[in-house]
Amino acid sequence: MQEKIITGKDIAERMKNVKHKIVVTSGKGGVGKSTITALLATHYAKKGYKAGIFDADFLGPSIPKLFGIERKAKELTIGESGITPVYSDRFGIEILSIQFMLPSRESPVIWRGLAINTAIRSFLGSVDWGEIDYLLFDMPPGTGDAILTILDFVELDGLVMVTTPQDMSVSIVEKAINMAKKMDSEVLGIVENMSYLECPKCGERIYLFGEGRGVELSRKYGIDLIAEIPFDLELMDYAERGRVEDYEVDYFEYFYY
Amino acid sequence: MQEKIITGKDIAERMKNVKHKIVVTSGKGGVGKSTITALLATHYAKKGYKAGIFDADFLGPSIPKLFGIERKAKELTIGESGITPVYSDRFGIEILSIQFMLPSRESPVIWRGLAINTAIRSFLGSVDWGEIDYLLFDMPPGTGDAILTILDFVELDGLVMVTTPQDMSVSIVEKAINMAKKMDSEVLGIVENMSYLECPKCGERIYLFGEGRGVELSRKYGIDLIAEIPFDLELMDYAERGRVEDYEVDYFEYFYY
Repeated sequence: MQEKIITGKDIAERMKNVKHKIVVTSGKGGVGKSTITALLATHYAKKGYKAGIFDADFLGPSIPKLFGIERKAKELTIGESGITPVYSDRFGIEILSIQFMLPSRESPVIWRGLAINTAIRSFLGSVDWGEIDYLLFDMPPGTGDAILTILDFVELDGLVMVTTPQDMSVSIVEKAINMAKKMDSEVLGIVENMSYLECPKCGERIYLFGEGRGVELSRKYGIDLIAEIPFDLELMDYAERGRVEDYEVDYFEYFYY
Repeated sequence: MQEKIITGKDIAERMKNVKHKIVVTSGKGGVGKSTITALLATHYAKKGYKAGIFDADFLGPSIPKLFGIERKAKELTIGESGITPVYSDRFGIEILSIQFMLPSRESPVIWRGLAINTAIRSFLGSVDWGEIDYLLFDMPPGTGDAILTILDFVELDGLVMVTTPQDMSVSIVEKAINMAKKMDSEVLGIVENMSYLECPKCGERIYLFGEGRGVELSRKYGIDLIAEIPFDLELMDYAERGRVEDYEVDYFEYFYY
């Protein structure tokens, strides 16, 4: 894959077979972008669509862990038709992550932006997704190289913005929304994550980060609020065990995209 | 500040007056790096030291918000002796953040790595910290441009690694620890953040992300566990109101560095 120079044309060619392309981003780290991406891909897969995930968080990849498929690294092969992604266990979601190419899960990727930019382009132009309905891009935090490269080279349907309800997170998500505007990219909707937690003992609803910021953000920018997702200890447990596909609740029931 | 080319020598000159230089990092986003940085700076200030913070998270700066000093942007001036930082309200902690230079708090910084690299070098060589005991660097997530540039140009005392207790976070923090090793940087200690939450109604201790991972990490790598910090709704409230300096608890009582 390093032998050939990847051009925008190669990328366009690869993306022809991908019906919908959606970026899941935030600006802020640790708001649950990867978990939301995994849940959204599972949502599409359950509806009968073919779904895939491009894990664009090269410095902190979480997707393989969420699906419990770190062991499947060897299934990622590079052949004549390009790189074949790895399939998730239950729904066969196609997954590409830099993690599959690292010697161990603790191996760091020590790359400056230029290397990230080059690697993303190289992957975009080399992965053979086959015919696929929804390709989701899980982004690293920030409005830097990774998202700029993807916005440059992929004709997206749009972006899904993930936030938690605290002010500290919201103001950084606003930066990402304003970046999208400046780059003429559509924000399809906002997901408020970790909205509240229910005490497992007394049932008290605990607002970890304050209340109602997702709605406010939605009104301020005229963007749909797709979902308000609680901090569910059960979901956390599924995620930790790499069984995110087995989590029953579908928060995207009313997201028709 | 743009007129002069900043060299490594300029940076070394500026850093001469700074006794201790500590990077607060993680690899993972949203684990509370900025809050920990703010609490650590406050700890030093309370002990009578002169402390400062270099907010190196250009794409998602949180430090000004935590100290409630976004309004003070105009105090950041560029004179003959360089850029003067902004002082926090209560303890006069010196703070430099890209946020002070943006038209609004929602303005994005849309920069590729090279621009980040250049800006960090430019700041490092231009800020007049005066005589200062502790300068803390609040890092963005990841093992990319920001931290590489700081490791390249600043002779650090070492790094403080922040993690939350879930596996998904720990494995990415391990990447950052391994990066530090590869770059011959010392990790001074590990902070486990959001260890647990106490239900405000019934007092039940809720482990949001599992238990004991900080201790495990500390043993595996032979690095001190400096603090296990609970998810304190009161701290969250102080942070949201920009009054992090007024929070009473000092989690770094036993961190003698």
